[in-house]
Amino acid sequence: MILLQTPVIVLNVKTYGQAIGNNVIQIAKIMEEVGKETSVSMAIAVQATDIYRVKHEVSIPVWAEHIDPITPGSHTGWTLPEAVKDAGAVGTLINHSEHRLTLANIDACLTRAHETGLDNIICTNNVATSKAAAALNPQFVAVEPPELIGGDISVTAADPDIVSNSVDAVKTVNESVKVLCGAGVKNGKDVSKALELGSEGVLLASGVVKAKNKREVIKDLADGIK
Amino acid sequence: MILLQTPVIVLNVKTYGQAIGNNVIQIAKIMEEVGKETSVSMAIAVQATDIYRVKHEVSIPVWAEHIDPITPGSHTGWTLPEAVKDAGAVGTLINHSEHRLTLANIDACLTRAHETGLDNIICTNNVATSKAAAALNPQFVAVEPPELIGGDISVTAADPDIVSNSVDAVKTVNESVKVLCGAGVKNGKDVSKALELGSEGVLLASGVVKAKNKREVIKDLADGIK
Amino acid sequence: MILLQTPVIVLNVKTYGQAIGNNVIQIAKIMEEVGKETSVSMAIAVQATDIYRVKHEVSIPVWAEHIDPITPGSHTGWTLPEAVKDAGAVGTLINHSEHRLTLANIDACLTRAHETGLDNIICTNNVATSKAAAALNPQFVAVEPPELIGGDISVTAADPDIVSNSVDAVKTVNESVKVLCGAGVKNGKDVSKALELGSEGVLLASGVVKAKNKREVIKDLADGIK
Amino acid sequence: MILLQTPVIVLNVKTYGQAIGNNVIQIAKIMEEVGKETSVSMAIAVQATDIYRVKHEVSIPVWAEHIDPITPGSHTGWTLPEAVKDAGAVGTLINHSEHRLTLANIDACLTRAHETGLDNIICTNNVATSKAAAALNPQFVAVEPPELIGGDISVTAADPDIVSNSVDAVKTVNESVKVLCGAGVKNGKDVSKALELGSEGVLLASGVVKAKNKREVIKDLADGIK
Repeated sequence: MILLQTPVIVLNVKTYGQAIGNNVIQIAKIMEEVGKETSVSMAIAVQATDIYRVKHEVSIPVWAEHIDPITPGSHTGWTLPEAVKDAGAVGTLINHSEHRLTLANIDACLTRAHETGLDNIICTNNVATSKAAAALNPQFVAVEPPELIGGDISVTAADPDIVSNSVDAVKTVNESVKVLCGAGVKNGKDVSKALELGSEGVLLASGVVKAKNKREVIKDLADGIK
Repeated sequence: MILLQTPVIVLNVKTYGQAIGNNVIQIAKIMEEVGKETSVSMAIAVQATDIYRVKHEVSIPVWAEHIDPITPGSHTGWTLPEAVKDAGAVGTLINHSEHRLTLANIDACLTRAHETGLDNIICTNNVATSKAAAALNPQFVAVEPPELIGGDISVTAADPDIVSNSVDAVKTVNESVKVLCGAGVKNGKDVSKALELGSEGVLLASGVVKAKNKREVIKDLADGIK
Repeated sequence: MILLQTPVIVLNVKTYGQAIGNNVIQIAKIMEEVGKETSVSMAIAVQATDIYRVKHEVSIPVWAEHIDPITPGSHTGWTLPEAVKDAGAVGTLINHSEHRLTLANIDACLTRAHETGLDNIICTNNVATSKAAAALNPQFVAVEPPELIGGDISVTAADPDIVSNSVDAVKTVNESVKVLCGAGVKNGKDVSKALELGSEGVLLASGVVKAKNKREVIKDLADGIK
Repeated sequence: MILLQTPVIVLNVKTYGQAIGNNVIQIAKIMEEVGKETSVSMAIAVQATDIYRVKHEVSIPVWAEHIDPITPGSHTGWTLPEAVKDAGAVGTLINHSEHRLTLANIDACLTRAHETGLDNIICTNNVATSKAAAALNPQFVAVEPPELIGGDISVTAADPDIVSNSVDAVKTVNESVKVLCGAGVKNGKDVSKALELGSEGVLLASGVVKAKNKREVIKDLADGIK
């Protein structure tokens, strides 16, 4: 498994209208360029329909936004880990706030990610669930209070304790799990604050996807890491 | 909207291991060739990850296996109708037996299919739900008793009445809705029986995907229509 | 089956804090009294935990708010139709806006309601789904635009066409199905308007449960029918 | 909170046809009697519809089989913790194998259980999820491999390591959490083996509910603890 280099900026483009097909390829290219200029590690999680296209246009790691806890077979319309991998994804988000899974299925998705060689980030909503997720032994836990997702205030400003306490709780259970910080992350200041609080990167979405000048925002985020 | 020409053979490759990436492209190419040879209308529903690739390799209609009832926005890991369309799909299954939706969401998916210009098939499980689905005004209703899906006995043999009664019930509610026949369809005899019972085509999966000689099976199915 | 006499006022107490245990018994008693005074048909749908208690305190029909499409067996924590019946319910809501079911499961719940002798109301959100629901042959369809539920404006004021068009659509498919009108119903004027539009009663919740003077509101609703 | 005395036998009657209304009262009475005779701690989890009735007939703790992660309000047909408590339950199962919840909702249910004063058992399926559940700080974790539930072979015979390893994993994360052992438990030998492996009781269902002579089985289970 090619574990993401940290500190890292992971962009989740969700199903935003600004991030379909050619548009998400453009965003990925900007990330690739800024990543090269600044030597900051970057990855992009895209819709299943776009994994193949983005993968063939950029060198940064392309991730899936979701996998289902299934093996090859009769599962019409669900997201098969093998298919995501075949299309070119090297990792996957699991249990995003907008796509919650049962505890048993988070565990099953992790097993499937291991079996298919997909890096993985389990998304969580608070300190307790971050600790629980760490017990399942993922590579990353991304803590994102749902009420801050998509908003204008970064979790690092609104609730810094949730980040540092999640880092502490996660490390208590499993030293090898890295913590990302999400929800409301918008600029370089948010990123550097996130690292200060003990996280090893950020997971963000609207801050980049909805920005008028995406290059400027991505560059600013990267500068927060350097 | 490019309504499927009928009678039609629609193949749903599900998430079978034999139908990912290059393998599903091979299946689609065989369908395209047999379609040309026999002048039988064919379409293939593939995983979201494979729509783009299949679309660029064949001329037969490529369909999505599923869409979610969402508009562009914050819906991490769900299947956006616009994304499916942008990748090259011209239609979508809705409410497959392995991916059931609420009644309200079937209706919402149909609205989204209309808005994005996707042809559509609502899958149902019996006469009553076929009639209900027809009331929502889709292009097709595909009736598939779940207990026969993936099995060795075709619905046309096991329960021919469900097909003819579904056709009657659907037409009573909405003359313009066409009925497909699914579950256990394996060969040309099943196809011709399906048409005799009043359907305008078949929806099938394992009969082709798991076949050793896929060309032979597809040719036999097409011969059932000619 | 003891079909509700129409026109009817059906109160759904949801899981409101004002409608648990002794409090819901008080509400049911007021309905019983006003029903007797005014000769207006009334029924109350209560939480599963309260069916037995309410049933033993009042003579008006007690309904379940929901059943699951299951038969006796291994289904920990789900709502078994036989259990609801045994506790004293004579009917059940199916597919409430806050508890949506798949189309296949709405059909399965109706079958279970018939098997266990429970009257039934399928809740829907618009004209198309009301028509679809009617095709399944329930006793009642209650049309409730979700955006109006719990609000201050009655569906009869905000969108009267949805009521009359639902009545028309339902009767086209199935003459024997009766239509109730829900969402935002608060007073006698709303009730009489609902009947004018062709419905045969109302399904309401917050208008009664959150009222300071519940007797006054229930009396006013009843006067809308007389 | 009145924590269950351990070692304990917890019976989950699910939605078995043999355990509705008067029948589940009879089962609870037998448990009460055998509990008194043997001084073994016992509890019974019943359907929401039966909590009130069972509670008023026996002195052993009555539990809910499930709660939903909701607060009082508009949640038609879901299971409100306050309602379960008001009906007489003193505890609740959470996340049973037949009623899985998202990780975020397991955490939310635990919070609601604390707020309403309900004892709690989180059900899990393997060592990893048992460890994760322990991180959420419930009173009990009941580990039950789903493939053994309802079967004839006890988890203590089929997979004893899963019990002892779950105990170890749980205690590493949270010393105060007690482990129950479920799936296939049928007799006193299974119970005593479960205790030997480090658990503090058993959670069982069909072994009692489907037994011809329930008193004999319950007595045998109790003898496994003494």
